[in-house]
Amino acid sequence: MVIVRSTLTFQPVLDRIADEIAQTPTRGRPADYIPALAACDPARFGMAVAELDGTVYGVGDWRQPFSAQSITKVFTLALDLAREADELWEHVGREPSGNPFNSLVQLEYENGIPRNPFINAGALVVTDRLHTRTGDAAGTLLDFLRTESGNDRLAIDEDVAASEAAHGDRNAALGHFMASYGNIDNPVPVLLDAYFRQCSVAASCADLALATGFLARHGIRSDGSRLLTQRQAKQVNAVMLTCGTYDAAGEFAYRVGLPGKSGVGGGVIAVVPGRCTLCAWSPGLDEQGNSVAGVAALDRFTTLTGLSVF
Amino acid sequence: MVIVRSTLTFQPVLDRIADEIAQTPTRGRPADYIPALAACDPARFGMAVAELDGTVYGVGDWRQPFSAQSITKVFTLALDLAREADELWEHVGREPSGNPFNSLVQLEYENGIPRNPFINAGALVVTDRLHTRTGDAAGTLLDFLRTESGNDRLAIDEDVAASEAAHGDRNAALGHFMASYGNIDNPVPVLLDAYFRQCSVAASCADLALATGFLARHGIRSDGSRLLTQRQAKQVNAVMLTCGTYDAAGEFAYRVGLPGKSGVGGGVIAVVPGRCTLCAWSPGLDEQGNSVAGVAALDRFTTLTGLSVF
Amino acid sequence: MVIVRSTLTFQPVLDRIADEIAQTPTRGRPADYIPALAACDPARFGMAVAELDGTVYGVGDWRQPFSAQSITKVFTLALDLAREADELWEHVGREPSGNPFNSLVQLEYENGIPRNPFINAGALVVTDRLHTRTGDAAGTLLDFLRTESGNDRLAIDEDVAASEAAHGDRNAALGHFMASYGNIDNPVPVLLDAYFRQCSVAASCADLALATGFLARHGIRSDGSRLLTQRQAKQVNAVMLTCGTYDAAGEFAYRVGLPGKSGVGGGVIAVVPGRCTLCAWSPGLDEQGNSVAGVAALDRFTTLTGLSVF
Amino acid sequence: MVIVRSTLTFQPVLDRIADEIAQTPTRGRPADYIPALAACDPARFGMAVAELDGTVYGVGDWRQPFSAQSITKVFTLALDLAREADELWEHVGREPSGNPFNSLVQLEYENGIPRNPFINAGALVVTDRLHTRTGDAAGTLLDFLRTESGNDRLAIDEDVAASEAAHGDRNAALGHFMASYGNIDNPVPVLLDAYFRQCSVAASCADLALATGFLARHGIRSDGSRLLTQRQAKQVNAVMLTCGTYDAAGEFAYRVGLPGKSGVGGGVIAVVPGRCTLCAWSPGLDEQGNSVAGVAALDRFTTLTGLSVF
Repeated sequence: MVIVRSTLTFQPVLDRIADEIAQTPTRGRPADYIPALAACDPARFGMAVAELDGTVYGVGDWRQPFSAQSITKVFTLALDLAREADELWEHVGREPSGNPFNSLVQLEYENGIPRNPFINAGALVVTDRLHTRTGDAAGTLLDFLRTESGNDRLAIDEDVAASEAAHGDRNAALGHFMASYGNIDNPVPVLLDAYFRQCSVAASCADLALATGFLARHGIRSDGSRLLTQRQAKQVNAVMLTCGTYDAAGEFAYRVGLPGKSGVGGGVIAVVPGRCTLCAWSPGLDEQGNSVAGVAALDRFTTLTGLSVF
Repeated sequence: MVIVRSTLTFQPVLDRIADEIAQTPTRGRPADYIPALAACDPARFGMAVAELDGTVYGVGDWRQPFSAQSITKVFTLALDLAREADELWEHVGREPSGNPFNSLVQLEYENGIPRNPFINAGALVVTDRLHTRTGDAAGTLLDFLRTESGNDRLAIDEDVAASEAAHGDRNAALGHFMASYGNIDNPVPVLLDAYFRQCSVAASCADLALATGFLARHGIRSDGSRLLTQRQAKQVNAVMLTCGTYDAAGEFAYRVGLPGKSGVGGGVIAVVPGRCTLCAWSPGLDEQGNSVAGVAALDRFTTLTGLSVF
Repeated sequence: MVIVRSTLTFQPVLDRIADEIAQTPTRGRPADYIPALAACDPARFGMAVAELDGTVYGVGDWRQPFSAQSITKVFTLALDLAREADELWEHVGREPSGNPFNSLVQLEYENGIPRNPFINAGALVVTDRLHTRTGDAAGTLLDFLRTESGNDRLAIDEDVAASEAAHGDRNAALGHFMASYGNIDNPVPVLLDAYFRQCSVAASCADLALATGFLARHGIRSDGSRLLTQRQAKQVNAVMLTCGTYDAAGEFAYRVGLPGKSGVGGGVIAVVPGRCTLCAWSPGLDEQGNSVAGVAALDRFTTLTGLSVF
Repeated sequence: MVIVRSTLTFQPVLDRIADEIAQTPTRGRPADYIPALAACDPARFGMAVAELDGTVYGVGDWRQPFSAQSITKVFTLALDLAREADELWEHVGREPSGNPFNSLVQLEYENGIPRNPFINAGALVVTDRLHTRTGDAAGTLLDFLRTESGNDRLAIDEDVAASEAAHGDRNAALGHFMASYGNIDNPVPVLLDAYFRQCSVAASCADLALATGFLARHGIRSDGSRLLTQRQAKQVNAVMLTCGTYDAAGEFAYRVGLPGKSGVGGGVIAVVPGRCTLCAWSPGLDEQGNSVAGVAALDRFTTLTGLSVF
């Protein structure tokens, strides 16, 4: 991929996208499995682009914190990979699942080894291992996000975490099921607590675009230190592209053409390797659990700028 | 086919890769479901890189024709998309299957609509539709490959085609199964004949790297005419990246980081959008049906050149 | 099971059941995959009981021929078992499938060995093997049914057979799929022809109740000769009870409590071992493909007479 | 417990079976998922037959208590059915599962409603509902078993219960999974405690043959009071026949031809409706989790006595 750096900023593109989104009536429905998410207004929309040097452009509700949810799976994956490297891949796969994000079916056929780190089962394995290595997976994540975003107020929404725990039977089932195959280290309730807290991080488009920057900088953090090797950064991007949006990964690759990861809070992050990172947010989801306006905004961005990996 | 040795050529990289591959003893086993493929020597290896202008670099058996097999699915997809555009996607999906390439399971759960055009069921649908639109799917493919590669001797290996037909019960099952859902236009025996002939095209690494060029040129054929829109070319690349190597698409994206497509003849093509196309060949396959040395060669190429999309 | 032979006949019970059925408005819908079956009037109803000595009682349309369809699977199973005994069970299982009658899913997970002889895949295997052993599976079946029923006019409805063949893609898929695993002896088109003719036998409730008699007589045919050993007859009854009514075998056992087998023509046969055999017919089917009024009539019969195996 | 040796007794049959079993070297392996079961000697064997009036015949280790395990599912089913009748069937099905006893796959496809009350998921639902209705499912079961067997020392083995709980991740996964579909009333840990205690009842062949008597007496308890209606007793027998031995129900029906239920402790109960009940025990299991010698003994019993339902 050859990219020529123009003197233009991303602001006009973001403004145009926001205008187009504002004229689009269909927005999907917020996640309704916990009250905290169901109350979100699907009319809200924000988007941010962060350049490699930390310059951020934004539009709409781009500074409004929202529930990051599954977007955090990218960061825990990177934080654990940085610590244990390839040993992780003996406990979680790297293939698309072809099934909904909380499916148990494949897990059973494949003896408790989840298909990839972005379905819930795989994310539980990653969090379990990060928790073992750090003693506090959610805290490690929070530190990382605060540092990369430069936002010290970035925090876990404890109400959301409690609500997740109160509606956490499916994840409890996943945890116990994998534990029955010996693929979980921590006691399942301990793991679930860490996982629900991780999912409940509240962050803005600006925060998340900045925190994703290391994936566009081939593994380098905002302070210039290395989190991942170049090869690992490439690999995380590859897993995002093939597995990042539940069972709509093919659709996302087809439309947006960038490594990306969505969360049921309505956020979606994306990476233009070597160039910039993006985060769009709008709470209304499609049937696969991806933000309708968020994906549409990223689709428009790659079409307008030509900044797809394909 | 014009071969120009530019001052900054890919030749040294290819030579180095060939040296490394020559020192790697493990090569997998040739496909054994038909005698014509089983007889191939797994020690053979070739690789070619084609630049956008048709310049080709090669090493090893890069001019040796081999059975293209599933690699042809990329071309029939493009040839059909060029004719019917998005209507195709009502009959075949764009999501990774997460299952082996000839699985019937998912097809049943999803009412005869294959997951993507690169599993056998999906390729049968594409060939069926191309056959309806052109009257001769295999002939249309052959014309295209000859023109793009500049090789008029490129041909269908009729012995292989006959052998495929004699061992074609699984594909016959797929065809009849989808016909029972109304997703096949032609009589199943007619479709199977076209499909087995398509798979039996014999072409070299040089031929296939050149024929793939339109995907690196954003839809433009070798003569400057447009086959696909820029958006369609991007979309075919996206489907290759997420679905191109059977149930190892995640692994391929993770290791190679390029849109690619493999065939059980031992060939693998790959695309560096805006830059070049590649084809590697070695008959020994891994358990997922992908060429062991072919994938390893592409892995080394992206590592040595940095030409990954991630 | 202890049964005391009374002097009373079954006629009053049948008359009462017919009265009750006549007052039941809900009758389901005839099978609609081929025109010949779709044209049947769901208001029709017949029922026959045959005692061990060949005495037959009947009510309603009990002498009206209808399409026997899957009921014939019981007879081909017995006719093949009589010839090859336990070797058959290496090619077809004896377990309930838990899936619809024409599912390919389980077949794939279990390498082409169908779960039992009463799902379509299993019946194809049985017919294939009987065809190999007799040279004419459908003819062998027809001879048997004519002899046991004493009805020489009993025949294959060639229009139905042609219609089955014209809508036979699903069974063609099953045949080719199992052939790909080496579990079919005859060419698939030959097998399909035999199978579609077998399914198209037209017979009445009286015919089928009489023809089933050997299963109540522990393996003895109407002329006193032995078709099956006592153990084999018990085994066929067991397979009927656990697998005879598609994915509603549990429901049938729960409601009727007898070994039974249904067909999409609306017929259902049942066995009271050591006592009598039954056949009920009404073309309207439920969602599982079983005759609504036919099953209801058998349910009433066992409730009124206490003649359940439980 | 009254033991009368009648002139036409089952004793000679039992003695003969025990002799035959003693000469059979192949016995399978004890369940090894908890130490308490793994320690059992597979050479042990016992068998008891109880007539309708409470007369019991036995051989071998027929008075030796063993872990009843899944055999208790028959009793909790009956105890709950007696309380809520058909409402239960809205929460658990009556069809064979066609899958291993602790599978989550089918449960997911069928939205948290287990296929039948004898797979673990279904048994959890039954215990949950019985616990809601009685306040103490395991205690209710224990009372019932003591009364029917006349054995006041019959007890829960608390060591086994603790061991089950310590290895209970799979059942915890099932419980949480169904809770996520709203199909569990009690908190999952409460349910699991009741369930593990239920499974840990220790009882002998004599105890269990006697306690099963109500199913041969069409619903009547040992004291002459009615537990189930005649229709319900018939239905429980039907569910036992089609679903009682995990994914080998067809095999059991085919070989033994009686309603039966096995447990991983090595016990198997069976019912000859209107005649007698049986329990055989030997700790060595086959791959489906059924007692090798226990099933063989029941097979011989029905062959020697002709007391099959078919």
